[in-house]
Amino acid sequence: MPIVTSWVASANSALTDFPLNNLPYGVFDDGRGARMGVAIGESILDVARVDHGQDPALFAEPSWNAVMAAGPELWAALRARLTELLSEPAHRDAVAPHLVEAGAVRLLMPFRVSEYTDFYSSRDHATNVGTMFRGVENALPPNWLHIPIGYNGRASSVVVSGTPVVRPHGQLKGPEETAPRFGPSERFDIELEMGAIVGTPSSGPISVAEADAHIFGYVLLNDWSARDIQAWEYQPLGPFQAKATATTISPWIVTAAALAPFRTDAPERELPLLPYLREPGPMLYDIALEVGLTPEGGDETVIARTNSNTLYYSAAQQLAHHSSSGCPMRVGDLLGSGTISGPDRDSRGSLLELSWGGKEPISLQGGGTRTFIEDGDTLTLRGAAQGDGYRIGFGACSGQLLPARRPDTPT
Amino acid sequence: MPIVTSWVASANSALTDFPLNNLPYGVFDDGRGARMGVAIGESILDVARVDHGQDPALFAEPSWNAVMAAGPELWAALRARLTELLSEPAHRDAVAPHLVEAGAVRLLMPFRVSEYTDFYSSRDHATNVGTMFRGVENALPPNWLHIPIGYNGRASSVVVSGTPVVRPHGQLKGPEETAPRFGPSERFDIELEMGAIVGTPSSGPISVAEADAHIFGYVLLNDWSARDIQAWEYQPLGPFQAKATATTISPWIVTAAALAPFRTDAPERELPLLPYLREPGPMLYDIALEVGLTPEGGDETVIARTNSNTLYYSAAQQLAHHSSSGCPMRVGDLLGSGTISGPDRDSRGSLLELSWGGKEPISLQGGGTRTFIEDGDTLTLRGAAQGDGYRIGFGACSGQLLPARRPDTPT
Repeated sequence: MPIVTSWVASANSALTDFPLNNLPYGVFDDGRGARMGVAIGESILDVARVDHGQDPALFAEPSWNAVMAAGPELWAALRARLTELLSEPAHRDAVAPHLVEAGAVRLLMPFRVSEYTDFYSSRDHATNVGTMFRGVENALPPNWLHIPIGYNGRASSVVVSGTPVVRPHGQLKGPEETAPRFGPSERFDIELEMGAIVGTPSSGPISVAEADAHIFGYVLLNDWSARDIQAWEYQPLGPFQAKATATTISPWIVTAAALAPFRTDAPERELPLLPYLREPGPMLYDIALEVGLTPEGGDETVIARTNSNTLYYSAAQQLAHHSSSGCPMRVGDLLGSGTISGPDRDSRGSLLELSWGGKEPISLQGGGTRTFIEDGDTLTLRGAAQGDGYRIGFGACSGQLLPARRPDTPT
Repeated sequence: MPIVTSWVASANSALTDFPLNNLPYGVFDDGRGARMGVAIGESILDVARVDHGQDPALFAEPSWNAVMAAGPELWAALRARLTELLSEPAHRDAVAPHLVEAGAVRLLMPFRVSEYTDFYSSRDHATNVGTMFRGVENALPPNWLHIPIGYNGRASSVVVSGTPVVRPHGQLKGPEETAPRFGPSERFDIELEMGAIVGTPSSGPISVAEADAHIFGYVLLNDWSARDIQAWEYQPLGPFQAKATATTISPWIVTAAALAPFRTDAPERELPLLPYLREPGPMLYDIALEVGLTPEGGDETVIARTNSNTLYYSAAQQLAHHSSSGCPMRVGDLLGSGTISGPDRDSRGSLLELSWGGKEPISLQGGGTRTFIEDGDTLTLRGAAQGDGYRIGFGACSGQLLPARRPDTPT
């Protein structure tokens, strides 16, 4: 599929994240209040103000939940109408006054997160972490090749790109210590992930094909993780406060429709999947991903490059599994893929893996090294699917780590 | 504290769950739409229709979230005004027309659950489960005496008492089986718990004293659990689909104010708690709890009796720990205590423990035995704090297990 050209000139660049083929959905504030927007090149369309052809009530509240709840037919009609408005020069006079400069606005959370679930679906990531914690012989848990392992995260801690993150306190206990202490995390980390957003609710088990149709779109997702809090707390009931400080998402929901041309097959299955998890077709996406680390006042080093096509389980399989117990799924549920690591050292999606548990510091371009994140560092995820002369990007998913606060500081 | 008498005669019985000292908050539908109600004896006060002295907007939507969000001063003022209206005979003529018969209405979810967290705070429960899974030497995990261990559950699956529960499907793999299969759970269980409801939000770490003041009230809570799904899925990231089918709560929120006379001290600490978890005073409650099992068409057997004063960690300590990482807590967050088991065999709060992993079936009064729940069984939790001539009860927390549906049955 080639680029679809727009009368918004900046949308026709091969380098923009937001050509007309993309049309991602966000929420912005230009000083006149929070509103729903659609990114197009270097501009944002103030969508409620144009002749979008849908019920204005869907745009009354600054979040995309109402549009999601309106269902797939409306999703398709809205996308078709926006494509028409932004491609046909006849609409230019009516629409152009409602474009705002992307550089001049603040981007807000694009949707209300109902609940947040995080999975563990990258085989290289699970193998790396398992090797560090349990040795190479027991790296992959026995259930891993059968279940898209996941756990419930904390929706209240999901924030949009640009939100600073405060280094958390927690219970820490090193292997040599006899008792835990309470203090700032010393092994604070990122997790490079994709997030899938449920757009169609369900109240019982659904198939992988149904699940795929229920997904409205995707974001980049950084599941900040305190590895030392995690190591001490996670047995027997899983990660809890280690993952509750913040999860940052990119500001634009890239729709499943925009990503459709970039479908790829899952990797070969080492063991056959149970029928309820078998995919009816290619369900992964070819999306190049990278992580940049920028020390305060310094230059960015790209510390990891990988691709979401390396995942073992797709978001559709995760959602089908999530619903298998009868668990009701709701509009606005967010499903993290789990850290996406590739097979090479520089394709690992966390500092835990990149520095191999802190033992092998990585070098930064401006000098210095890192094992885990230092105060003032800004971590930025980027991702894009590469089309023929255009790219479908997500915008940056970025956050700076601020120093820990004394626990008795008023909040 | 003695009973406070009401002109509603049924509220003055020593046996009612709902004397004037209680004033629990719920939502009911008598066929004329869902409304907020206050239980008083055998009646329910249609609270929005009386001169409650507060902003009517707080009662516009049938859930108690808006009242919770209005803050502790309003909670106290509303409780004082309701006590006045229902105690002073001068108000009888104005108020009595807005009492409805409790037996004639359907009770609905009393609040919107923002997020649901389940803890693991009963030492006897943790010891029993640990003994079964890891042996008596390693029963209690090393972190247990330091951390109120918890995990995030699924808010979308929380239902009100009376809602049937469908036996879930899931991945099952017995110790003798070489590969998992997908089928109905064969070890479906209850968990007898208390649930605490966050009424005051927070955006950073809070102390135990602050956390205690943030809790609006309590419900009974049954965290239905598929033990076979859990056994196969829970390593390494904790329980997930095993706990996602349903969690049933009692229909009445019993306020912290009503329970204040029933405070008790925590048990002696085997190891000192870290300062951020130390309680400034008695934080547990003396609430007698029981579980009844009723086979379809049969008589109820009370299978367990215990007390919430046996918990090792209070809800306030759980909430303080939950906030310790900076995790934002919101109005309507629900915190389950974890299964409450006492030291005796008949004080165990789950069938897993009562039948010791299915090896020691328990006897039912009408004949028959149980290891886990059978289709058609109704499980009912009850709880009350015993005052001087009155009791503060929660109403029943009940649900019937329906047979598994074929996974391809439309839902």
